[in-house]
Amino acid sequence: MAELRQNMVTKEWVIISDDRAKRPDEYIESNKRATTETQTFYDPACPFCPGNEELDLEIECFPPEGPWQTRVVYNKYPALSKDGELTRQFDGVHRRISGVGHHEIVIENPRHNTTPALMKPEEIKPILETFYNRGWDIRKDPRVEQVIYFKNHGERAGASLKHPHSQIIGLPVVPNNIRHRIDAARRFFDDNGECAYCTMMQDELKNQERLVTTSKHFVAFVLYAATSPFHIWIIPRNHSVSFLYSQSNELDDLAHLLRDVLRRLYIGLRDPAYNLIIRTAPVKEISNDYLHWYITIVPRLSHTAGFELGSGIFINPAIPEDSAAFLRNVKV
Amino acid sequence: MAELRQNMVTKEWVIISDDRAKRPDEYIESNKRATTETQTFYDPACPFCPGNEELDLEIECFPPEGPWQTRVVYNKYPALSKDGELTRQFDGVHRRISGVGHHEIVIENPRHNTTPALMKPEEIKPILETFYNRGWDIRKDPRVEQVIYFKNHGERAGASLKHPHSQIIGLPVVPNNIRHRIDAARRFFDDNGECAYCTMMQDELKNQERLVTTSKHFVAFVLYAATSPFHIWIIPRNHSVSFLYSQSNELDDLAHLLRDVLRRLYIGLRDPAYNLIIRTAPVKEISNDYLHWYITIVPRLSHTAGFELGSGIFINPAIPEDSAAFLRNVKV
Repeated sequence: MAELRQNMVTKEWVIISDDRAKRPDEYIESNKRATTETQTFYDPACPFCPGNEELDLEIECFPPEGPWQTRVVYNKYPALSKDGELTRQFDGVHRRISGVGHHEIVIENPRHNTTPALMKPEEIKPILETFYNRGWDIRKDPRVEQVIYFKNHGERAGASLKHPHSQIIGLPVVPNNIRHRIDAARRFFDDNGECAYCTMMQDELKNQERLVTTSKHFVAFVLYAATSPFHIWIIPRNHSVSFLYSQSNELDDLAHLLRDVLRRLYIGLRDPAYNLIIRTAPVKEISNDYLHWYITIVPRLSHTAGFELGSGIFINPAIPEDSAAFLRNVKV
Repeated sequence: MAELRQNMVTKEWVIISDDRAKRPDEYIESNKRATTETQTFYDPACPFCPGNEELDLEIECFPPEGPWQTRVVYNKYPALSKDGELTRQFDGVHRRISGVGHHEIVIENPRHNTTPALMKPEEIKPILETFYNRGWDIRKDPRVEQVIYFKNHGERAGASLKHPHSQIIGLPVVPNNIRHRIDAARRFFDDNGECAYCTMMQDELKNQERLVTTSKHFVAFVLYAATSPFHIWIIPRNHSVSFLYSQSNELDDLAHLLRDVLRRLYIGLRDPAYNLIIRTAPVKEISNDYLHWYITIVPRLSHTAGFELGSGIFINPAIPEDSAAFLRNVKV
């Protein structure tokens, strides 16, 4: 029989559907024509490939001199405008805010046919450091309330360009879903005197059956209430409300662990599409000690439709413990 | 410049992105190979076509005697099991509930190549009456907390079978998104002494620029804070917390209006994929007078990716007022 499981920190329910369950290896995209590494190394038509640097306005690059390894550019079609005043209009029952904020692209590597799963840890660390630097810089803008760091890998995950890149959006509002998480974490602390995320992580470490891999500073596991097959969280072991408090040695450690996790997906499931998101405190609440930042990775292996839209409850056809065991057994 | 708009009843923000805006007619799926009506009238391999009635266990049909016009059957691959006890296990930090509930399919018409947009109002009313009857019946099950009525039309909306059908799921929990809506509606009432949904509807009637069509008992409009192009709500004019309180004459009226709205989408945008959901009060709160039931129609014309997943904020590349004007001008 199926079961409903609740994510203890978000309070969201999910249906783990064993009647519809597939074995983990059934998610391997066997009919996939090509993976990232079989693409061309360099594409002269790609705006992010070396040689086309003048196409996008650069914000910063690393290293600052010589050939770049990572670059940050303004999104040519930004969801929000960098310039302009933050105005609020309360027009009868309607509330609107001018669409100001930040929308930046992090070009992760000069190579066209790579992805973090194929990079060396030394290539991943500058990406994380770029997130960190841009996060602190965007935070200086008083119009910004929340920074969202995310990566869409593969067409099914919404990536329109193949060149490895991620995005940073600085929003002039705190999204509802983050407000709800803060409320839930605060209530958990009031009830238990402990951080909900720390409690969840300790439980995963003790229980072990959903662990994917661990490092000195981070723990990666498939969620007990995974909303989709192979839905993974990477949580820092040390209680920390914001990604912006990460130390350099922690980012170094994270680069290794993130590569390990993404390689397991890449090798085990043949380069599936995925979304990766850093969930972190609103910029004006980075001293709100109830939250705990983390990375979520959502492979796009199942579909959502009217039921998920109507209920907000996802039907996951994969048993989280099986997904985790499968990933642990991938040879990386 | 883009703008952020807030849905006054759900409190969710959306980015209306005019930099990325398309004209309404650019959403017409011009490269579409076939629309519903060009499919075959009857498919012997379709489990929902007449002649294959023994393939699915029937719950009820209409009319009860003679050739059927609508049928309700058990889903062969249910997300939740009809039989079994509702058990709650609180195992350390984990909460799980046995996956019991209801998962029914409403076969809307014997014809394979039709859809509500192509039906007569007299064919749509029995579908609504079936929802109503099944809703009251499922509500008798004390394990059920929430009933979700939904329709996935077209592959992009998650429909796996072409034969016109919708689904009813009876859940043993109240989804978080409905809890949040109730909280927001209650707060609005405390602040304003009025139903948030009635207030919104009155504003749309007065303002007119987002109206699609109206009838004696219902109002259809594109949302001020539409999360995607042509995102429509259909709200009963009379304050009513639950779809289960609908009167027969109201369902009759709704059948006409729903057909009108769906025809505008079908003709105007060449049979786009969409999800349709009836949002109504939890079954144990149908006397909670703060809520107001409604139908939401979400055409699947834009993609969601990491940003939406990370922030819960949607980027809508269509201006709601333009979408509404376009639909008003469709000749039905």
